[in-house]
Amino acid sequence: MRLQSFAQGAWFSGNGRGAVLSHAITGETVAEISSEGLDFSGMAAYARTVGGPALRGMTFHQRALLLKELALHLKGHEDAFYAISRATGATRKDSDIDIAGGIATLFSYSGRGRRELPNDTIHIEGPPEVLSKQGTFVGQHIHVPLKGVAVHINAFNFPVWGMLEKLAPTLLAGMPAIVKPASQTAYLTEAVFRSIIDSGILPEGAVQLICGGVGDLLDHLDCQDAVTFTGSSRVGLALRSHPNILSRSIRFTMEADSLNASVLGPDAEPGSPEFDLYVAEVAREMTVKCGQKCTAIRRAIVPRGVAKAVIDALRVRLSREVVGDPGTKGVTMGALASHSQLQEVVGRVRELNRNCEMVHGSVDGLDAAEDRGAFMEPVLLYCDEPLANSEVHDIEAFGPVCTVVPYKDSDEAVLLSQMGQGSLVSSVFTRDDEFARLMVLETGGWHGRMLIVNRDCADESTGHGSPLPNLIHGGPGRAGGGEELGGIRGVLHYMQRVALQGSPTTLSHVTGKWIAGSKQQRDDVHPFRKHLEALRIGDSLVTESRTISMEDLEHFAEFSGDRFYAHMDEDAAKANPFFDGRVVHGYFIVSAAAGLFVDPSPGPVLANYGLENLRFHTPLYPGDSIRVQFTCKQKIPRETEDYGEVRWDCQVFNQKDELVAGYDVLTLVAKRGADAA
Amino acid sequence: MRLQSFAQGAWFSGNGRGAVLSHAITGETVAEISSEGLDFSGMAAYARTVGGPALRGMTFHQRALLLKELALHLKGHEDAFYAISRATGATRKDSDIDIAGGIATLFSYSGRGRRELPNDTIHIEGPPEVLSKQGTFVGQHIHVPLKGVAVHINAFNFPVWGMLEKLAPTLLAGMPAIVKPASQTAYLTEAVFRSIIDSGILPEGAVQLICGGVGDLLDHLDCQDAVTFTGSSRVGLALRSHPNILSRSIRFTMEADSLNASVLGPDAEPGSPEFDLYVAEVAREMTVKCGQKCTAIRRAIVPRGVAKAVIDALRVRLSREVVGDPGTKGVTMGALASHSQLQEVVGRVRELNRNCEMVHGSVDGLDAAEDRGAFMEPVLLYCDEPLANSEVHDIEAFGPVCTVVPYKDSDEAVLLSQMGQGSLVSSVFTRDDEFARLMVLETGGWHGRMLIVNRDCADESTGHGSPLPNLIHGGPGRAGGGEELGGIRGVLHYMQRVALQGSPTTLSHVTGKWIAGSKQQRDDVHPFRKHLEALRIGDSLVTESRTISMEDLEHFAEFSGDRFYAHMDEDAAKANPFFDGRVVHGYFIVSAAAGLFVDPSPGPVLANYGLENLRFHTPLYPGDSIRVQFTCKQKIPRETEDYGEVRWDCQVFNQKDELVAGYDVLTLVAKRGADAA
Repeated sequence: MRLQSFAQGAWFSGNGRGAVLSHAITGETVAEISSEGLDFSGMAAYARTVGGPALRGMTFHQRALLLKELALHLKGHEDAFYAISRATGATRKDSDIDIAGGIATLFSYSGRGRRELPNDTIHIEGPPEVLSKQGTFVGQHIHVPLKGVAVHINAFNFPVWGMLEKLAPTLLAGMPAIVKPASQTAYLTEAVFRSIIDSGILPEGAVQLICGGVGDLLDHLDCQDAVTFTGSSRVGLALRSHPNILSRSIRFTMEADSLNASVLGPDAEPGSPEFDLYVAEVAREMTVKCGQKCTAIRRAIVPRGVAKAVIDALRVRLSREVVGDPGTKGVTMGALASHSQLQEVVGRVRELNRNCEMVHGSVDGLDAAEDRGAFMEPVLLYCDEPLANSEVHDIEAFGPVCTVVPYKDSDEAVLLSQMGQGSLVSSVFTRDDEFARLMVLETGGWHGRMLIVNRDCADESTGHGSPLPNLIHGGPGRAGGGEELGGIRGVLHYMQRVALQGSPTTLSHVTGKWIAGSKQQRDDVHPFRKHLEALRIGDSLVTESRTISMEDLEHFAEFSGDRFYAHMDEDAAKANPFFDGRVVHGYFIVSAAAGLFVDPSPGPVLANYGLENLRFHTPLYPGDSIRVQFTCKQKIPRETEDYGEVRWDCQVFNQKDELVAGYDVLTLVAKRGADAA
Repeated sequence: MRLQSFAQGAWFSGNGRGAVLSHAITGETVAEISSEGLDFSGMAAYARTVGGPALRGMTFHQRALLLKELALHLKGHEDAFYAISRATGATRKDSDIDIAGGIATLFSYSGRGRRELPNDTIHIEGPPEVLSKQGTFVGQHIHVPLKGVAVHINAFNFPVWGMLEKLAPTLLAGMPAIVKPASQTAYLTEAVFRSIIDSGILPEGAVQLICGGVGDLLDHLDCQDAVTFTGSSRVGLALRSHPNILSRSIRFTMEADSLNASVLGPDAEPGSPEFDLYVAEVAREMTVKCGQKCTAIRRAIVPRGVAKAVIDALRVRLSREVVGDPGTKGVTMGALASHSQLQEVVGRVRELNRNCEMVHGSVDGLDAAEDRGAFMEPVLLYCDEPLANSEVHDIEAFGPVCTVVPYKDSDEAVLLSQMGQGSLVSSVFTRDDEFARLMVLETGGWHGRMLIVNRDCADESTGHGSPLPNLIHGGPGRAGGGEELGGIRGVLHYMQRVALQGSPTTLSHVTGKWIAGSKQQRDDVHPFRKHLEALRIGDSLVTESRTISMEDLEHFAEFSGDRFYAHMDEDAAKANPFFDGRVVHGYFIVSAAAGLFVDPSPGPVLANYGLENLRFHTPLYPGDSIRVQFTCKQKIPRETEDYGEVRWDCQVFNQKDELVAGYDVLTLVAKRGADAA
């Protein structure tokens, strides 16, 4: 079997002999791979001219629904992917992380995209910025999609998740992608990719695949493109140093394996739940995916006094692991992804072993074991002098390998954690929240993610090694300095943040969201009588005014039960630094405001589901009157519902035209022909 | 005069002969500069061990107040700075941008820091992330200060603003800085820096200064450090390619001059206000600071039909400029910063002149003019075939130079704008908001900032070339791919974003903000009776319950005036997809909730100033009852007031313990001994 690339809308078999990929369990040949003869420049151009416009022609919500459809499609075909995954050496559990985890990421981005982004093509970030006294000139940060192509260079250890976790935010942003999986396990990526193409769900040009090397692709990129890389620091450094990437300031996001630490708190004595949880987690991180995870625990930093107890407990745990063909009953740990990977790990273990004692496992004889699968037992090391030995903080054996590192006091625990020079994740097992806070404050700068485990959260903890779509993944320094995922944050990596400046009316027109000071239009029809389609941004209403009397105030206090002194006690209210006397209840102001702006008859407005950013600006006193300016601010039609969200700007003024209160009212409004009544 | 560096708490005169800096107007020697002999590694270590801990020992608000104090101090000494600024060739107006603009940036960050950051050392970003079904395991993104040093390598054109706009967010983040001004105008930076040190306002080690080269400083940085660079693409590329920066993933933010475009809309005919505004803006951008601004307009992209009219109008404007010693009355444009700068600009103009016609000004004889100031008249070029000539989109003459570039239609205007390969800012002069939207959508990916000018905003517009502290500054590609300023966004460049995971109680303890599911404590004292200091995060109250009757609903409708059909009309409410019958008003629910949780007597709670994130989750029907769980969520003591902000989590449940409504109540609470009553 020769793996194929998918370029410019067609499958392509690379020229030449190609590299041979072997089955991790049996050692048999699985496939050959070569990208020779691909037109890399043509692929980039195709993405830009065909895939980009097609994706950008859709809204965020439409793209989010594609992701959901894709997730459902892949879920329907996952059995085939699990079968192929066995060739990577993965157990069923290992494959779950990769395959089910990848599909879950698509679902997650689909949901977040529809909840948190507008049903539009521009993302609006933050409130308008006040830039002028009269308010005729304002600012607004937005994000627009880049007009290039995202090149995703992925690692061998997660052939499915690695592709999907990057595709989800990229496609949601409106950017086409070229996926380049690591060769070793590219046969699984190719199978999933083929299923994506066969589904016909994505528009033409949205995704392309390179099986084999990237050729001269990076030479053809410019400032509208983005490159992401997951893999070793060494390869990452070479890519980041590419002259074209450097000279054109091409976005480069790197996520490298790192010397992730897990710290056992000084409080977690043997016998405590946190001690047991720690031992279980270190063992799990060593064995899941044969320890081939960028996020795996490489350094177990423990109080010196309990180091022996930790080692003993880990040895018991690790002795229970059954290494072998994941197809065989009882096997708990499969093979490394390839023989070359095994050789690499064995070499690193030997380097570590110079200054660290091997306290469990062995790598003897693994050098020559070419005739069988890439199997290896877990190896535990112990570094007695971790401040004096840099190797333990620097050399990564990307397999089922971990080193126990003792610390004297919390200062030393902090220092040892920092000595990893930046990592994707660090965990702390402690029931002492003050120790947790110390570790976050003192070592947080070195880690992209920090997990704090105690007995209260352990049952539901997703674990040290699991990146989640809603949390950022990536870390400083050794971990590559990149960041991905983290919900919508991950989408913005594929967009350009632009600071817009101009008149409120212009910026409202550009962004599709009403900005204070922007044009408003009034007609004979109350905005509550308009369907979603008929409502225009800026449709507004200025209400009659209502005078609030002392009797009203008293009445409201009585009825609501809110008899706070600032409303009820003239002297106490006057003594308060903010009031000149008894003030009207804020809750009454918003209630009476609704009384003024609501149109009562059945119509397209279905519900008021919330209210945001309410601020009381000027105190209202009995005898004052209020009127409301109510303006259609933003519409978010739902693709799959017969209604949408409408956000209204609500400003309450007193009889002197001073702003009393301002807030956003959130409603659901029916589309045409879908009235409630 | 020999400029001094300020290293490890002491002034230091560099060894050796040093480079000679000349007066831009008179050509006389102003100063010598050398950093030879500085202990660069020692400076970095000093920042990390002395400055960092001192800054991180303060809260955001305390650091923000330092910035204000510093701004006031520098404002009191600005006359001296203006006098020195003349040597850079600057007019009074030019110096305003640099000196007053720099001080304004300090004020801006001081205000924003206190308004938008907590009075604490950790910045909490976004809401908690739901990671588990039972809610015992949650996530929270935070930012913690980096533990290294920020190295700011600044440009010659803004010796004061360039230093202060980078120092403000750096110091606010809690990070010490080493400032390295461009040599040409370092005498002005040194004077301002000396004033900062003399003031004694900043803690020891917070800032250091290098007058001269950076030596081997970059070799001594690691992943906790950050490097920023403002200047030419060429130098920026060299710095970004530094092996240590690449291999340690050191944060590198670059802001380079670029081929910024200003586009005249097709609607802006000669005689229209937008046409006149355009001509005035292009002329201003060419002449302010002698065109030595990274953001200046280099390409004036205009409809082909009006190109001649634009050129004619610009020639009239530019002919009025009086170039000379800014100290002389009537002079409107000063000198370039140095002779070497002049030679550079002249060379670039000659390159551009190969394919572009020179339609105003001349550079004849400027090569040899060593005997006078670095003066040059504005030069306007015209490129008749801009699609065929890449020079106009690539060669930047960093002086009073601009090229008029004609376009045929809006597609061509888009293409020409993009041909700059990424820029800091682009402007569009149009009254056609649809053309503005097109330009933003089609070219936004190439620009960090986009300004849209029409007659409505022109009076208050801050102009094409002005970066503002509240908007991001920086752009993709040619502009360096960096980003700075943008309010709090700029502060976060000096912090590490960390995704925290753990139990709600642990994360509340770490962040100082209550998270749903976290521990609550109840005692005999109502939380409204506690001073700010006595209130603890998690102090909570569960109220009595109140049943809401149909009479209550009717009464509220009558009293508020809100007779919306979902409350009043059983059939219409039932026909609504969300309700089973008449529902209780949301505004009544929050009013009655206040009636339940408020403690009425005079006490430390001063005012309810707002409410946030209100969502109605479960409809409440007549006959249902409500009770409230009210919890102290966050405290933000004001440094300069005898009160602080207290945010309360308010959850309203019905008799079935279903969540009816959830929101944050915002109050002001007095510190001890500062009661209102």
